[in-house]
Amino acid sequence: MLNELSNVAALIDAEIENDDFPSAVKPEYLRLAVRDYPCHGGKRLRPALLLWSCGLVDGEIDHAIPAAAAVEIYHNWTLVHDDIIDNDSVRRGAPTTHIQVADYAAKHFSAGTAAADKFGRDFAILAGDIQQGWAVNMLLKSAERGVPAPVTVALCRRMQELVNRELISGEALDVEFPLRGWRNIGPDEVMRMLYLKTGALLRFCTEAGAAIGTGSHDFSEPVITSLGEFASSAGIAFQLRDDWLGIFGDFDKFGKSIGADLASTKPTILLLKTFELIGESDRKKLESLIGLPEYTIEQIETVRKLMRDSGAEKYVLDKSAELSAKGRSILMCFEDNRYRQLLLELNDYLVSRDK
Amino acid sequence: MLNELSNVAALIDAEIENDDFPSAVKPEYLRLAVRDYPCHGGKRLRPALLLWSCGLVDGEIDHAIPAAAAVEIYHNWTLVHDDIIDNDSVRRGAPTTHIQVADYAAKHFSAGTAAADKFGRDFAILAGDIQQGWAVNMLLKSAERGVPAPVTVALCRRMQELVNRELISGEALDVEFPLRGWRNIGPDEVMRMLYLKTGALLRFCTEAGAAIGTGSHDFSEPVITSLGEFASSAGIAFQLRDDWLGIFGDFDKFGKSIGADLASTKPTILLLKTFELIGESDRKKLESLIGLPEYTIEQIETVRKLMRDSGAEKYVLDKSAELSAKGRSILMCFEDNRYRQLLLELNDYLVSRDK
Repeated sequence: MLNELSNVAALIDAEIENDDFPSAVKPEYLRLAVRDYPCHGGKRLRPALLLWSCGLVDGEIDHAIPAAAAVEIYHNWTLVHDDIIDNDSVRRGAPTTHIQVADYAAKHFSAGTAAADKFGRDFAILAGDIQQGWAVNMLLKSAERGVPAPVTVALCRRMQELVNRELISGEALDVEFPLRGWRNIGPDEVMRMLYLKTGALLRFCTEAGAAIGTGSHDFSEPVITSLGEFASSAGIAFQLRDDWLGIFGDFDKFGKSIGADLASTKPTILLLKTFELIGESDRKKLESLIGLPEYTIEQIETVRKLMRDSGAEKYVLDKSAELSAKGRSILMCFEDNRYRQLLLELNDYLVSRDK
Repeated sequence: MLNELSNVAALIDAEIENDDFPSAVKPEYLRLAVRDYPCHGGKRLRPALLLWSCGLVDGEIDHAIPAAAAVEIYHNWTLVHDDIIDNDSVRRGAPTTHIQVADYAAKHFSAGTAAADKFGRDFAILAGDIQQGWAVNMLLKSAERGVPAPVTVALCRRMQELVNRELISGEALDVEFPLRGWRNIGPDEVMRMLYLKTGALLRFCTEAGAAIGTGSHDFSEPVITSLGEFASSAGIAFQLRDDWLGIFGDFDKFGKSIGADLASTKPTILLLKTFELIGESDRKKLESLIGLPEYTIEQIETVRKLMRDSGAEKYVLDKSAELSAKGRSILMCFEDNRYRQLLLELNDYLVSRDK
């Protein structure tokens, strides 16, 4: 499966690299910013979900390639705007878009720090805006590659009505949490936020693959909705596994990143569930261990014990296993073929990985 | 014509008001921000251009209504992001989106000023992002209202390949000018920026109207390209008239806004052309009159004399008249009907208005 995933990545890398949408963008450093994240590679999990879902229903994989490239570009524009909002300076080991443009402005226009920073953020807003248009345009190219025009229209509407609205609403709720104070947020609320912010695009990937594969433009058909359920379940299961690894992962494999969620006071479901389940004195102990600049093994062990003894760890692992099993049972309703096998393996991989 | 324009505005207001795209947006104050600018009314010049172009080629006006609403929503998302970038606090007499959300955060989350301001900007980025998706979705609704799916796909691709790329590139160049120092910018460069920032969407309006009206999905057809030329010419003519009115307009009608472009050191074509044409000592005189907080009638008269004697005023008025005549001659190639008459009157109005 990981080998097949690499093949998908190579295919999508080439599709995005060779697309000429950014070519008309001016000035040149904005054009480079528009290409930067989408052309940076990555695992390309979303395109794989889309292509394999198309294959699962015996569709022509080739017809689904523009849509698979589109979801990746879509994902990337949301990252560009997220990175401005989160003040992040590094993404995939390189400077984020707003930092890159700020550096350019400082160098080429001799702008002072504040002016260069603002210029970097302004251009990153515009770069993400263009990327959103690029993603839409790439999806519409499906009509040139064997997808009937009415299906293409339906796909593009679904991209707006599902992904645009829900993903951005999820991001908004995530931005709101710190202002509300994370102690006022419950685990169920975080779960709902994740279904929007992470789940909507994943759901679209499998839905789009199934729609292209079956030639349907009705997103309420059971084949399409059930594959959508599979993807959003798998995505949340993945996220829960991620939260768990961030505390219970292997110190030798992760080093400092164990505890990073605690250091950044990220309201994970694991943490919020622990707060919900523990008593007053343990709550104070746990609170004193949140937001530290660094964590010793002993401190992590204290947190682990609180999470384990409270039942929060079990809750998160059970929930993750339950979602994974749900995904598996959905896939098992489809006839067996190599794409079903790939999706089953992907579903397992997402919740069993240890890094 | 102005009466017909009001009818268009009422039609488009209702179409946007009643569209349910924003209804699924969370949280509620983000939903309100998404609806705010598009539902605020206005002259709705862009929808009128689109609908009347459809009527000009004997198309069904009714089929073009979703597209006409879409261009208005599209225009508004670019304003939301522009207002963040320009730090503008007022739009159409009301607080801009980022200011509104900042006020909300200060009140409801007891956020400090800096945190509330950042929250306002972050949410305004997200509101504009959703509006871009809303505009795309509205355009795609054309397929439900009598526009064939292949034409709908072509319209939506044109929206990305023309409007998204060019409009945002134009905005980027406009943002770049102050960092480069406006004395390093020539009038031709500003003209090119305007063709992108203002001209691209206007061009799309007439092209889309003609494509819907003729049922064509080939944007290289002469009927479509010539109407596109008309709109971008009319738009630049309008802008040149605007620049001229900002200096040579009637003091009694405009009061303080005469000189506002000078006060804000806006690099208008009128100003840059004057600099291009005058000698060294006049240049120093003109420079000393730029960026003042207020202007007396005598100071404005000095600027007017420099602009008039240099030939820059004549250049701008001639250019504006030439573009308007070009637009007129394009329209005269179409058969006469009431929509041609409306477009001719609109074309005249844009360059003859004195306020």
